[in-house]
Amino acid sequence: MNSTGIYLRLTTFGESHGVAMGGVLDGFPPGVRIDFDALQAFVDTRRPGRPGTTTRSEKDRVEILSGFSPEGLTLGSPIGFMVRNTDCRSGDYDRMRDTYRPNHADYTTECRYGIRDHRGGGRASARETLCRVVAGALALQWLATRGVSVESRLVAVGGKDVSHYADPEALLADIEAARSAGDSVGGVVECRIQGMAAGIGNPVYDKFSARLAAAMISINAAMGFEYGAGFAAASMCGSDMADEFVSDAQGGVSTLSNNCGGIQGGITNGNDIVCRVAFKPTPTIARRLRTVTRQCRETTLVSTGRHDPCVALRAVPVVTAMAALTAADFLIGHEGTGAGHSAPSNPML
Amino acid sequence: MNSTGIYLRLTTFGESHGVAMGGVLDGFPPGVRIDFDALQAFVDTRRPGRPGTTTRSEKDRVEILSGFSPEGLTLGSPIGFMVRNTDCRSGDYDRMRDTYRPNHADYTTECRYGIRDHRGGGRASARETLCRVVAGALALQWLATRGVSVESRLVAVGGKDVSHYADPEALLADIEAARSAGDSVGGVVECRIQGMAAGIGNPVYDKFSARLAAAMISINAAMGFEYGAGFAAASMCGSDMADEFVSDAQGGVSTLSNNCGGIQGGITNGNDIVCRVAFKPTPTIARRLRTVTRQCRETTLVSTGRHDPCVALRAVPVVTAMAALTAADFLIGHEGTGAGHSAPSNPML
Amino acid sequence: MNSTGIYLRLTTFGESHGVAMGGVLDGFPPGVRIDFDALQAFVDTRRPGRPGTTTRSEKDRVEILSGFSPEGLTLGSPIGFMVRNTDCRSGDYDRMRDTYRPNHADYTTECRYGIRDHRGGGRASARETLCRVVAGALALQWLATRGVSVESRLVAVGGKDVSHYADPEALLADIEAARSAGDSVGGVVECRIQGMAAGIGNPVYDKFSARLAAAMISINAAMGFEYGAGFAAASMCGSDMADEFVSDAQGGVSTLSNNCGGIQGGITNGNDIVCRVAFKPTPTIARRLRTVTRQCRETTLVSTGRHDPCVALRAVPVVTAMAALTAADFLIGHEGTGAGHSAPSNPML
Amino acid sequence: MNSTGIYLRLTTFGESHGVAMGGVLDGFPPGVRIDFDALQAFVDTRRPGRPGTTTRSEKDRVEILSGFSPEGLTLGSPIGFMVRNTDCRSGDYDRMRDTYRPNHADYTTECRYGIRDHRGGGRASARETLCRVVAGALALQWLATRGVSVESRLVAVGGKDVSHYADPEALLADIEAARSAGDSVGGVVECRIQGMAAGIGNPVYDKFSARLAAAMISINAAMGFEYGAGFAAASMCGSDMADEFVSDAQGGVSTLSNNCGGIQGGITNGNDIVCRVAFKPTPTIARRLRTVTRQCRETTLVSTGRHDPCVALRAVPVVTAMAALTAADFLIGHEGTGAGHSAPSNPML
Repeated sequence: MNSTGIYLRLTTFGESHGVAMGGVLDGFPPGVRIDFDALQAFVDTRRPGRPGTTTRSEKDRVEILSGFSPEGLTLGSPIGFMVRNTDCRSGDYDRMRDTYRPNHADYTTECRYGIRDHRGGGRASARETLCRVVAGALALQWLATRGVSVESRLVAVGGKDVSHYADPEALLADIEAARSAGDSVGGVVECRIQGMAAGIGNPVYDKFSARLAAAMISINAAMGFEYGAGFAAASMCGSDMADEFVSDAQGGVSTLSNNCGGIQGGITNGNDIVCRVAFKPTPTIARRLRTVTRQCRETTLVSTGRHDPCVALRAVPVVTAMAALTAADFLIGHEGTGAGHSAPSNPML
Repeated sequence: MNSTGIYLRLTTFGESHGVAMGGVLDGFPPGVRIDFDALQAFVDTRRPGRPGTTTRSEKDRVEILSGFSPEGLTLGSPIGFMVRNTDCRSGDYDRMRDTYRPNHADYTTECRYGIRDHRGGGRASARETLCRVVAGALALQWLATRGVSVESRLVAVGGKDVSHYADPEALLADIEAARSAGDSVGGVVECRIQGMAAGIGNPVYDKFSARLAAAMISINAAMGFEYGAGFAAASMCGSDMADEFVSDAQGGVSTLSNNCGGIQGGITNGNDIVCRVAFKPTPTIARRLRTVTRQCRETTLVSTGRHDPCVALRAVPVVTAMAALTAADFLIGHEGTGAGHSAPSNPML
Repeated sequence: MNSTGIYLRLTTFGESHGVAMGGVLDGFPPGVRIDFDALQAFVDTRRPGRPGTTTRSEKDRVEILSGFSPEGLTLGSPIGFMVRNTDCRSGDYDRMRDTYRPNHADYTTECRYGIRDHRGGGRASARETLCRVVAGALALQWLATRGVSVESRLVAVGGKDVSHYADPEALLADIEAARSAGDSVGGVVECRIQGMAAGIGNPVYDKFSARLAAAMISINAAMGFEYGAGFAAASMCGSDMADEFVSDAQGGVSTLSNNCGGIQGGITNGNDIVCRVAFKPTPTIARRLRTVTRQCRETTLVSTGRHDPCVALRAVPVVTAMAALTAADFLIGHEGTGAGHSAPSNPML
Repeated sequence: MNSTGIYLRLTTFGESHGVAMGGVLDGFPPGVRIDFDALQAFVDTRRPGRPGTTTRSEKDRVEILSGFSPEGLTLGSPIGFMVRNTDCRSGDYDRMRDTYRPNHADYTTECRYGIRDHRGGGRASARETLCRVVAGALALQWLATRGVSVESRLVAVGGKDVSHYADPEALLADIEAARSAGDSVGGVVECRIQGMAAGIGNPVYDKFSARLAAAMISINAAMGFEYGAGFAAASMCGSDMADEFVSDAQGGVSTLSNNCGGIQGGITNGNDIVCRVAFKPTPTIARRLRTVTRQCRETTLVSTGRHDPCVALRAVPVVTAMAALTAADFLIGHEGTGAGHSAPSNPML
């Protein structure tokens, strides 16, 4: 199903070259004043047409369809939103009607549904992440009322550690070099959620870490997820891994290290929640590749259409959005759906 | 919630030192003949008391409570099962009543619920995985009627590649060395699902890969998940990553490589589904560590209780079980719940 | 949450006097050709501005936003749709900003959310049923490919049996008489689902009858639900109630009566599924009633705004829609989500 | 699926003549002290073997398997429970192996699953309601900590109003008369939930009334549900139906009547929640009825096995249990799952 979240639930719709992308964000707390300019500004951080990204140029103006009082406060009712698709060059995709692009979802979509919209990847297009970012922007604003913030950044590109890069231009230069060579590069995005109280999450199947993993792996091109020490933990011994507890200045509990990434037994411990997501290189490249047609005849294909040489770069706000949606979902479940819980931000009462 | 799966849904209960561990497996197809000896044999592969594992000795005899006809065929009704806890030395845990074990869920459980069963970790104990293995054994038998198999193995221990280990004794020797030193080691388990048809899964949020990630990260001590090329994909360029399509001997579609791990756009492509799960070292070690009490006073603790020096070793059948439950869940959703879909295995009609 | 259905899932949004009403219908089978004129025609049957209904005049043109191939076939992806609100006289509702209308959801909405959109009832308005009818129209067209049809009719108005009314004008005359007197009348709608195979539904909690009950009672102003003999069954003895089985001409099983309304133990038996829904009189009437303000001061109110004197009349297509969504939801779960199940209607393959 | 509830979720298992009936109640608040004698006493009110009920004699001793601290407080973890089946005379059902009992679920179960346990009705037996009553007893005890109570009573038997019956013996005499005549009678159960605050529930699909309807119609033999004025509302005019608001002595809001049964727009208004459920006569009667075999040959059958002449009588605690589970489910969602919400009843902190 095209939904994610339990208490705060996002349902999206839209094909890349259809009428519009859009969604419904249900379960959003009532009485929250939203800064729509800040929302649009966050959405713009994933917009194509910027350096290092696809040359497709969409305005991506978000239209809010429901969920707000005349005074601009959330009502607690579902927030419908929509972005019209405007710059579709569907003709670029004529060749793909009958030929599967390698490493894309063309073949599997056809196996799954017996039909697909070949134009721009249809529903499987990364354009769907636009809806995640709209909903994530709303979640971020509510989280801020609870003292929670989320930040993500690219920490590796094509195997190179860029986590301490002083010069973003150099980063983009690497990415553009790949584009010039008709190729693409992978990358790793790190995300940090700050300000979550201890005690949020569930043991066993519905762990904070498990739902966060699903949220991240659901992003287009994501191939791996880890939190805290992650895969490196498999090489550690228990005495190094242990996050020893100490009493902090305020008489609370804190730890000397954060190898567990802020989550123990699926429940937050009050530390920063830190995770990393590995993205494969953009599958669409200007190289001739072997493939087959719908009739199962072998052929070759040079993908056309406009694409990002490093999908990880544009994934940064998407990772933030999915983390924000996941954190807000858990926190809303924790606080309950009673009107009282949003009282601090409701100036009407 | 203590449930996992959508069409095939497992709900479990039980604390480590309570009366029993158990569960309900709902949505299991009707008319399937189960080999109960094979089920018990699979469950026994995670049993403690074997070399390289905890010395706690549980018989772990599975009692089936419902869901079968007098002839031993599944009815399509929920399968209730139970394993009584017998070898509990709760006295070992007296010290933990007031003191949080580092890297365990003691502190977070108390933050979450305001109360916890300190004996053996209560609900957060890895003993809960027993229920996953029982349900997984049932799922494996149904998958076999569809030509699907699942296998897992330890591929790394404490940073050492053991994927081609000829001698399992050497592996155990490493693990026992850690135990002798009062320490523990992490590891990586690789899982392979073979025989899944192409077209199983969903795009967007409910991807096969996303649900598999959540299933794996929900296992105790799991810190990372990757499928196909995984984190290595972030260092690759697009031309190396591409799984080019070719026509196979039977006139079907296959690929020259499997960097996408059998899943494209969240949907299976007919290749083996391959994933890896990173496990941290067992947190319980015979070393003195700093910690705090429930009253937030600093202290130190040497954990007692019986534990595995390498939780990854016993996680192998758990990984298999979670993969089997995930694969069966998707396949049952795909086939539907109509009686007809189990006709091949129903000899009564 | 603002969603209904499990396999075929409708999520709606929109306040009565907001920008638009809309929804997402997820899980709709792929490869189905939709007759959009027929869809709009069905939606028009609930449109206000016809005899016996409110004088609010909405065009209610449905805009489809996603889910269709260029050739007009469903893709299996979520179907987004929207109807803009155009004829809102929000000024009519100024008085209601601070005063609760009796028998409306004004007071309870404010208790629930701490905020409400007083214009036209906001989210609690019967205008939301527009979205149900759009989705129901799509479900009806898919059901038709399976030989299933749904029909509803008004069988009682204000306590008078109108089930055999030859003259619909007489019916409307009664309703208009209530309007002229500044009052309103209740009614009963009967619904019949024909063509469902036997064996659809579930025992225990997720019975066909239970989900149908929830679907019907979720309609604005619904106060009661019964199926088959319904409340009359409570006055019957077992020998009269029994639907005796006989063998029919085709060698199949049928029954001599249909007191169980086509559902036994929560599962269809192949007979017509028959249910009835009781609707209270429209709460908005041109009579002065006692009420209180948000500040809990007593006052009186004559409701204004444009409303139906008999909500049951306009509920007829809504009952059909909810029955169609429920039947399609069960049938899709039964058939599974595999591409194969829609093959008969997919001319592309 | 064999589950009900969202935040407080009951999953049950067990066939009438299998090993055991049981369930898992998940989401129960932590830190609650349960009176197990009171629990067993409530369960005993539905026990067979009392006047007016089946002569099957089950001890029905509830065994709690998990979810409690050594001190007897709930842990917030799933509560597993089980009741062994002891008095099964499966031989009574030999005839039913090949012959469908009229008005039972035999035929539809076989259509649904292709297999059924013919002994005692298997999963479709009213014995499953035992699990509902166990879980309901737990819910009732938590509701009491919130000042909420639930009571149900038989208000009609075989068409006779028994709501003001002074003499329960007379009631039983009527029922025994039906049994003596080899027949059975239907009945109506009324349920009243007192003490629910205003503002609990949801608009649109997930109304308190809608979920209550599903809960009630899911009970074996239930044929109708109504709340407040119910079906009578369809005969009323708006001016009679209106529950006018007044200010009460405490400065709160109350109403002059309760025609809406405590629920407006799907959300509680602080009044008593009142609903009624119609039950058909017990289908198993000592009369010869026409039926067919699994091979579709016509035959006749006199049902044997031990049964209640008036299922509505034993349904009384089941109605209470389903109402309690529904009310607790909504209230827990409203309060949230944070540890804080159960603080008043947690003496450990």
